[in-house]
Amino acid sequence: MPLDDTRYLKGGPVAARIIAEVRAAADSATAEGFRPKLVSITVGDVAAVDVYVRNQRAKAELGGIDFEERRFPAELTAGELEAAIHGMNADPRVTGIIIQRPVPPHIPIKAIQAAIHPLKDVEGMHPASIGNIVYNELDLAPCTAAASVELLKATGLDLKGLEVVMVGHSEIVGKPIAFLLMSEGATVTVCHHMTRSVAAHARRADALFVAVGKPRLIKADMVKPGAAVIDIGINAETLADGSTRIVGDVDTDSVKEVASWITPVPGGVGPVTVAILLRNTMVALNRQRALYRETYGTSERQFAAE
Amino acid sequence: MPLDDTRYLKGGPVAARIIAEVRAAADSATAEGFRPKLVSITVGDVAAVDVYVRNQRAKAELGGIDFEERRFPAELTAGELEAAIHGMNADPRVTGIIIQRPVPPHIPIKAIQAAIHPLKDVEGMHPASIGNIVYNELDLAPCTAAASVELLKATGLDLKGLEVVMVGHSEIVGKPIAFLLMSEGATVTVCHHMTRSVAAHARRADALFVAVGKPRLIKADMVKPGAAVIDIGINAETLADGSTRIVGDVDTDSVKEVASWITPVPGGVGPVTVAILLRNTMVALNRQRALYRETYGTSERQFAAE
Repeated sequence: MPLDDTRYLKGGPVAARIIAEVRAAADSATAEGFRPKLVSITVGDVAAVDVYVRNQRAKAELGGIDFEERRFPAELTAGELEAAIHGMNADPRVTGIIIQRPVPPHIPIKAIQAAIHPLKDVEGMHPASIGNIVYNELDLAPCTAAASVELLKATGLDLKGLEVVMVGHSEIVGKPIAFLLMSEGATVTVCHHMTRSVAAHARRADALFVAVGKPRLIKADMVKPGAAVIDIGINAETLADGSTRIVGDVDTDSVKEVASWITPVPGGVGPVTVAILLRNTMVALNRQRALYRETYGTSERQFAAE
Repeated sequence: MPLDDTRYLKGGPVAARIIAEVRAAADSATAEGFRPKLVSITVGDVAAVDVYVRNQRAKAELGGIDFEERRFPAELTAGELEAAIHGMNADPRVTGIIIQRPVPPHIPIKAIQAAIHPLKDVEGMHPASIGNIVYNELDLAPCTAAASVELLKATGLDLKGLEVVMVGHSEIVGKPIAFLLMSEGATVTVCHHMTRSVAAHARRADALFVAVGKPRLIKADMVKPGAAVIDIGINAETLADGSTRIVGDVDTDSVKEVASWITPVPGGVGPVTVAILLRNTMVALNRQRALYRETYGTSERQFAAE
């Protein structure tokens, strides 16, 4: 089928809108003397993540955000990496810090992620960032989770009372999507590998999110007619001729005949995820500026001087 | 019906078991020179919370934990309270800090709760504590949420694949119960006031949790035969003679004819909640001791000296 089928819920236009909003905010912050900057950390094998980093850099430039790469050797100890992050936390020129995954196995990724100051945690992965989502502060969420919710919103469906089923309960995708949607008023069920019948739940969903890393797990008979299907899986599939292609967790060809909206893979959640990273950077910048004002009371002084 | 009906899932025995475990751990920590201490903060009207505080003190004594009350006048500013909390954070004799609710309206309770150091947050309400639950670190959760899950575990039901419906999506009860149970392998649906049909979801639940503050909301026809029903509501009901009594969110008299287990109100979740507060205090103490060891490396030095 042609890719311009209207049932495809494409990430490109949503990402472009978010990046344009980021650009306006970043230009205005830069004019006020607060130029936003992202620092990307890679440890060891840079080639594995190079395509992601190059894409992040290109999108950051579009959004008016500086992008700096810091590459560390694979032998770097966890203590050295933590010290480097503490340096970036203390550097007022650094707005946000991204750790490119994978990192070498001797680096404890969760502990390192938690070393990033919550106000510079643009990936939204610090426990305090996750906790804030639970407390209904939704503006800084893990990028993939927030991107998936943005795509559902792009359908125009009313989220209040919407029956949502999330297949997959990972800490940085499935669970945050569940809280984000609960906060928006949806009724959310989270399924996973221990669920008795994923199909029974999936079939009653107005909106179905899938993030389990199993190629083509969701077939047409598991989807309610008219549903919105957000496919967060990214799986490499080897074809008969030995070449590989990227497929999602949803059997798109069959499901698109049943669903009213379906995100393509690639070209669905992916592009929006990078846009959310940039939007999170602006949220982080604003929080840092607010803390500065609160600490020094500059705004009060400015008003007093006027 | 008599209160010793075996379908009643009473809190007393579960609380007694937890407090006995706490006692053993507290006695052993005390013998090692680390006596656990809880500090209870009340602001303004002490009478309103007096019965809770007296109960906490009695249970803390049973558990071998010191209990100190700090009472502040209603005129206390938020800044003064925050400063007092920072003092307790910095005091090595204080293991955990509880803020008794309600506080006067000029005190921003969420901000004050977040001023408690996460390692002294025995109520499990700091955003970082909530975030850690999402990351499957389940040992320090909000007390009521953890107590509710303990009661379900007391049924002996296998939580893996169990169909659970949580009615109520508050930040410190409904949502944390949902994450705790997801981490244990249950399939969880969270319903709330915007859900189209709470009954339709409730009727398919193997375990039904209710925390909405609506007296007798859940009737027998909303419960699956054989289910476990955990009633977290505490509502004051005025009788015909003008007296009041406490009832839950579940219509216990009718539901107990359908359910296999049901928690009474009072006497169900409540007693276990206080026991969890004490258990959280021991978790906090152990984390503080671990941080001390990590910072000073005392254990290594001890071994080196042997």
